[in-house]
Amino acid sequence: MASRAVCPGSFDPVTYGHLDIISRGAKVFDELYIVVLNNSAKQPAFSVEERIDLIRSVTKDIPNIKVDSYQGLLVNYAREIKANAIIRGLRAVSDFEYEMQITSMNRVLYEELETFFIMTNNQYSFLSSSIVKEVARYGGHISELVPPQVEEALMKKYVTSK
Amino acid sequence: MASRAVCPGSFDPVTYGHLDIISRGAKVFDELYIVVLNNSAKQPAFSVEERIDLIRSVTKDIPNIKVDSYQGLLVNYAREIKANAIIRGLRAVSDFEYEMQITSMNRVLYEELETFFIMTNNQYSFLSSSIVKEVARYGGHISELVPPQVEEALMKKYVTSK
Amino acid sequence: MASRAVCPGSFDPVTYGHLDIISRGAKVFDELYIVVLNNSAKQPAFSVEERIDLIRSVTKDIPNIKVDSYQGLLVNYAREIKANAIIRGLRAVSDFEYEMQITSMNRVLYEELETFFIMTNNQYSFLSSSIVKEVARYGGHISELVPPQVEEALMKKYVTSK
Amino acid sequence: MASRAVCPGSFDPVTYGHLDIISRGAKVFDELYIVVLNNSAKQPAFSVEERIDLIRSVTKDIPNIKVDSYQGLLVNYAREIKANAIIRGLRAVSDFEYEMQITSMNRVLYEELETFFIMTNNQYSFLSSSIVKEVARYGGHISELVPPQVEEALMKKYVTSK
Amino acid sequence: MASRAVCPGSFDPVTYGHLDIISRGAKVFDELYIVVLNNSAKQPAFSVEERIDLIRSVTKDIPNIKVDSYQGLLVNYAREIKANAIIRGLRAVSDFEYEMQITSMNRVLYEELETFFIMTNNQYSFLSSSIVKEVARYGGHISELVPPQVEEALMKKYVTSK
Amino acid sequence: MASRAVCPGSFDPVTYGHLDIISRGAKVFDELYIVVLNNSAKQPAFSVEERIDLIRSVTKDIPNIKVDSYQGLLVNYAREIKANAIIRGLRAVSDFEYEMQITSMNRVLYEELETFFIMTNNQYSFLSSSIVKEVARYGGHISELVPPQVEEALMKKYVTSK
Repeated sequence: MASRAVCPGSFDPVTYGHLDIISRGAKVFDELYIVVLNNSAKQPAFSVEERIDLIRSVTKDIPNIKVDSYQGLLVNYAREIKANAIIRGLRAVSDFEYEMQITSMNRVLYEELETFFIMTNNQYSFLSSSIVKEVARYGGHISELVPPQVEEALMKKYVTSK
Repeated sequence: MASRAVCPGSFDPVTYGHLDIISRGAKVFDELYIVVLNNSAKQPAFSVEERIDLIRSVTKDIPNIKVDSYQGLLVNYAREIKANAIIRGLRAVSDFEYEMQITSMNRVLYEELETFFIMTNNQYSFLSSSIVKEVARYGGHISELVPPQVEEALMKKYVTSK
Repeated sequence: MASRAVCPGSFDPVTYGHLDIISRGAKVFDELYIVVLNNSAKQPAFSVEERIDLIRSVTKDIPNIKVDSYQGLLVNYAREIKANAIIRGLRAVSDFEYEMQITSMNRVLYEELETFFIMTNNQYSFLSSSIVKEVARYGGHISELVPPQVEEALMKKYVTSK
Repeated sequence: MASRAVCPGSFDPVTYGHLDIISRGAKVFDELYIVVLNNSAKQPAFSVEERIDLIRSVTKDIPNIKVDSYQGLLVNYAREIKANAIIRGLRAVSDFEYEMQITSMNRVLYEELETFFIMTNNQYSFLSSSIVKEVARYGGHISELVPPQVEEALMKKYVTSK
Repeated sequence: MASRAVCPGSFDPVTYGHLDIISRGAKVFDELYIVVLNNSAKQPAFSVEERIDLIRSVTKDIPNIKVDSYQGLLVNYAREIKANAIIRGLRAVSDFEYEMQITSMNRVLYEELETFFIMTNNQYSFLSSSIVKEVARYGGHISELVPPQVEEALMKKYVTSK
Repeated sequence: MASRAVCPGSFDPVTYGHLDIISRGAKVFDELYIVVLNNSAKQPAFSVEERIDLIRSVTKDIPNIKVDSYQGLLVNYAREIKANAIIRGLRAVSDFEYEMQITSMNRVLYEELETFFIMTNNQYSFLSSSIVKEVARYGGHISELVPPQVEEALMKKYVTSK
């Protein structure tokens, strides 16, 4: 059975926490599609194209990964590419309840698609894209939180915009 | 990549909630080992052999399942059978924190082994072996909670023991 | 003692989860007032009148229900109609903490008014008006989530607005 | 509609937290049955008779209360006395998940019986019978935690037993 | 060792819950700096100057308190004033997870700075500035929630603005 | 103001998680008393004397620490040694609710004593004495979890007792 999983997110921008989940998922599934979802009303810091480029750059050494974007329901995307699993990271209790809600809804919409959760490494359990952006905006040190390419992109964005 | 996963538990006795997780896991992994762990100090209702027999009986139509028992650290069992994943069900916030603790410890002991969590179907999110035994002990109706073989075994145990 | 309870919410729009709580509450209280609260800053999908009409339509077979709207503090509304109880649904831990905050505040403002919580049926524990709107917006199947009248209203809104 | 509710618990012994829930419930329901459940394996500090006597003593001014005991499934007791509701107090997130489990099970066993939860007054949200016994055992001051009759009973038990 | 702690927040406006944490912290630390953080995108009800004036007014009897404001990362402020501790109040599980995230990030940015959490008094565990503003906006009674100076400022703001 | 804090626990045995909290607390308080509480009914793995010896051994380089034991209410111990603070570690949501209960009770018993919570380092957020004993019992690798002296003591206990 060739297994194909989808790992969806905003990735605005990708962090070491995302990379932890991605590399764990890529070890078990034959193919892993990283999908930048583009539904949210809120203004992102990076465009979809910039986010895809950063993910491609930081995952270029993992051979069984594809990077893509989608606007719409994740279950429709999963059907199109014939994925049989979703991969999501879990950090905290608040994540857990939100994910439970999304998973239950996805089961109503597409029962054959299973969602697998991976616990984020303790080291990154506090990490989120929004906290990284907050720190970067005020000139804090972020090299332990994101790969060098992402750090550079954030510096450019926030130093230029000042 | 042939994927082999372990699904550990007490299964004292197996419920429809366990079966939900087992059948979801069996759809994605090539081989799924159900392992009755036998470490706990507390007195079980069913012997390890009885628990294995009940699991075999209720999963006999799922071809890629093996049923086994183990006394010791789960990571050692996983190493012995060359599994690359653990499958666990998640029902509630309290499950989540306990599982996070166990997962973190297992990563310290055996880093290559990944743990995947599956959300239990909403319908069974309140179900546990201990609540089933409590209901059976007082003559409540359990046919929506456990397969017929398990219901029969519980009736025998609690009616006889009265 | 004739008991009169208030069941407040945004109901934007009413879902099967709301209906579950409403019909459970209506079995125990003599009169149940469904109140569309109209305080929030955020832009609703349906007007107060549309929301009231949908609730009336889907509860027309429950005789002891009245549907109303209010702008202001719920305790003031409860005083005006001489209610002695509030009914609220509980789905998850995050609900629980928010409800605890509101309940404590309402006790400070109007001590005689008691709040009763009902657990939402497991089947709807993942359901919210906002997730229904998200699914409807992208053309997902919602007939298991909302009554037919609400499905039709959502289709009209999101198909027309495209 | 004459409403009859059951308020179950161990009440080993009854505290001001229990009394808070009992008196709130007694304001809305026509009859409230306080039921000392006698199922647990653990050794109680007070006998069922002592617990009933203490509850009777501290609720003697609330006219619509009956005090009783039961060994078995609560739903069977509720059926016997023709109750249409269960009343439970909620203090914390951990309470919430346990109660959700019990409520879901009770719905499977007896669908017509509804469970209503009342938030415990903030002042008593930390209070439990076991913490009261722990404090009493070591001679701590408990008059803010339990009624005078219960304080006296605890003093007798722990001072005598030393 | 002279200890100097920072107690950061939005304080929009200061409530009896904040005052509870501030006065508890001021008993243990030699100097306590109350810092109005001014980073958030959302529109505050009171200007930074108004918020500082209200805090000064309600803490004027606590000698070891200084009131200040800051725009930027709290760790940078703590470094500037040579503080060795942060003081934060904890009310609920949702607070806990957010605070854990912030604390972990602050440790990455400035390891020597320790964060100490104090449980808010049960009496104020439901209290937040936003719920106070909501109640004040609709003319509810807030004198149990905020000091008289803050009540007056809120009345002026919301009665004038109507 | 000379500050004196108490850090209570079972310490059966002391882990790197405990050491993390102890060393963070010792940086801010003038004197820190580590107190082995000896109230629990459950059978410990190490005697009070063994536990004290292990704590002394692993904290011998921190000058402002004293190690002691106590049977009774912690507030009484704190009064005896004139401490003005308790220090506790927080790892997870379940810790949080239990600690909130204990803290509220301690405030009823001794209002002047303040409890300060410190977040455990992410690296040790999964660690508990009982999980360490479970791993040691089955021969797992524990050198990343406890100091060498404790590892040796555990090996002696579990290898000898087999």
